[in-house]
Amino acid sequence: MRIALLGGTGDIGQGLALRWGRDTDHQLLVGSRDPERARRRAEAYETELDGRGADGRLSGFENAMAADRADVVVLSVPAYHLVDTIEAVADRLDDETVLVTPAVGMKRDADGFHYNRPDAGSVAALAADAAPAAVPVVGAFHNLPADGLADLDREFEWDTLVFGEDADANAVVADLADGIEGLRALDVGGLANAPEVEAVTPLLINVAMDNEGLEDLGVRFE
Amino acid sequence: MRIALLGGTGDIGQGLALRWGRDTDHQLLVGSRDPERARRRAEAYETELDGRGADGRLSGFENAMAADRADVVVLSVPAYHLVDTIEAVADRLDDETVLVTPAVGMKRDADGFHYNRPDAGSVAALAADAAPAAVPVVGAFHNLPADGLADLDREFEWDTLVFGEDADANAVVADLADGIEGLRALDVGGLANAPEVEAVTPLLINVAMDNEGLEDLGVRFE
Repeated sequence: MRIALLGGTGDIGQGLALRWGRDTDHQLLVGSRDPERARRRAEAYETELDGRGADGRLSGFENAMAADRADVVVLSVPAYHLVDTIEAVADRLDDETVLVTPAVGMKRDADGFHYNRPDAGSVAALAADAAPAAVPVVGAFHNLPADGLADLDREFEWDTLVFGEDADANAVVADLADGIEGLRALDVGGLANAPEVEAVTPLLINVAMDNEGLEDLGVRFE
Repeated sequence: MRIALLGGTGDIGQGLALRWGRDTDHQLLVGSRDPERARRRAEAYETELDGRGADGRLSGFENAMAADRADVVVLSVPAYHLVDTIEAVADRLDDETVLVTPAVGMKRDADGFHYNRPDAGSVAALAADAAPAAVPVVGAFHNLPADGLADLDREFEWDTLVFGEDADANAVVADLADGIEGLRALDVGGLANAPEVEAVTPLLINVAMDNEGLEDLGVRFE
């Protein structure tokens, strides 16, 4: 499978690239608005994987070029860049491409982080509204700590919740998630169930901030 | 510690009564609007505990009588009964009493369950608004499956998130939670952080409904 990680130069994109690079045979296309930066990051990820004896299959591209070459496009960008990132690559997507959103909108006050629910209903709904109608949009990888995911020495047993309106596309993404060691994909229905999933991310940050010894938290349903 | 479980004749109240009855020395006051029903349920819980070799320290009372006798009052009632339950016992509470709300407002549509956030900001904020000003309100025990908790054969490693404006009261409730075998209390700050906690409950139900082999789910942060 060819997976594009748009905005794959940081945050959750880095962790997904490294984990898929180590644990699977997928081809990974690191995307950035700046192609030179994308290539440098892809090279840095390869170097880290080489150092661990894993075969690198990473390359770097400008976002639209990465999307054009991919079967699955992961929007690993902040929520406020989600819509313009989709618009920038929209004419490279078709009904064979699966668009994945792990983005969460948050705001912070004195008490902690809070889910900033968009008027569209959820961040995933924003993505679905912005995407071409034929392109399935799947929510996944929301509740994973970016630093913990990118630290390949960290072992975990985390769940990721997968939702969307196209069951086949959901299944493709669930398979990709299950390919990462220690990660379990759970089905959580359609787009209407997005807000409760997205709201877990600020909660994880609050729990990590308020409890000594807990950091970079994921979640497990059991 | 004397713990009143208002509405303790069903749902989460039953599970808490049985677990505290088995795992701790707390005195448990099962409350109901109907004192006869409260006594019958307390007796039934005692019988179950006796059958497992645990000492029963349960008794049944009308809600206000139970609240009057308790150090900690758990509002184990549905969200739509929360305010009238508080009002019915308000003159039995004082600044020595800790009021605990595990209640969550939910609505259901074709996709699943959803968090029904009250205008007050959260269900816990509703409770804080309805409680006498001197009485500390603590949120806890939201994300526990009632049936799994009440089934004493079920072992688990679940977290419960504790929040509120009074750190001492939060600590009292965290200790109560930690007294239940397999349950870990995590601090999650003040009342403003309630919505993200309350929203996990419908998510747990959706995950259980959508994934074969998973039922009566709790959550673990790790």
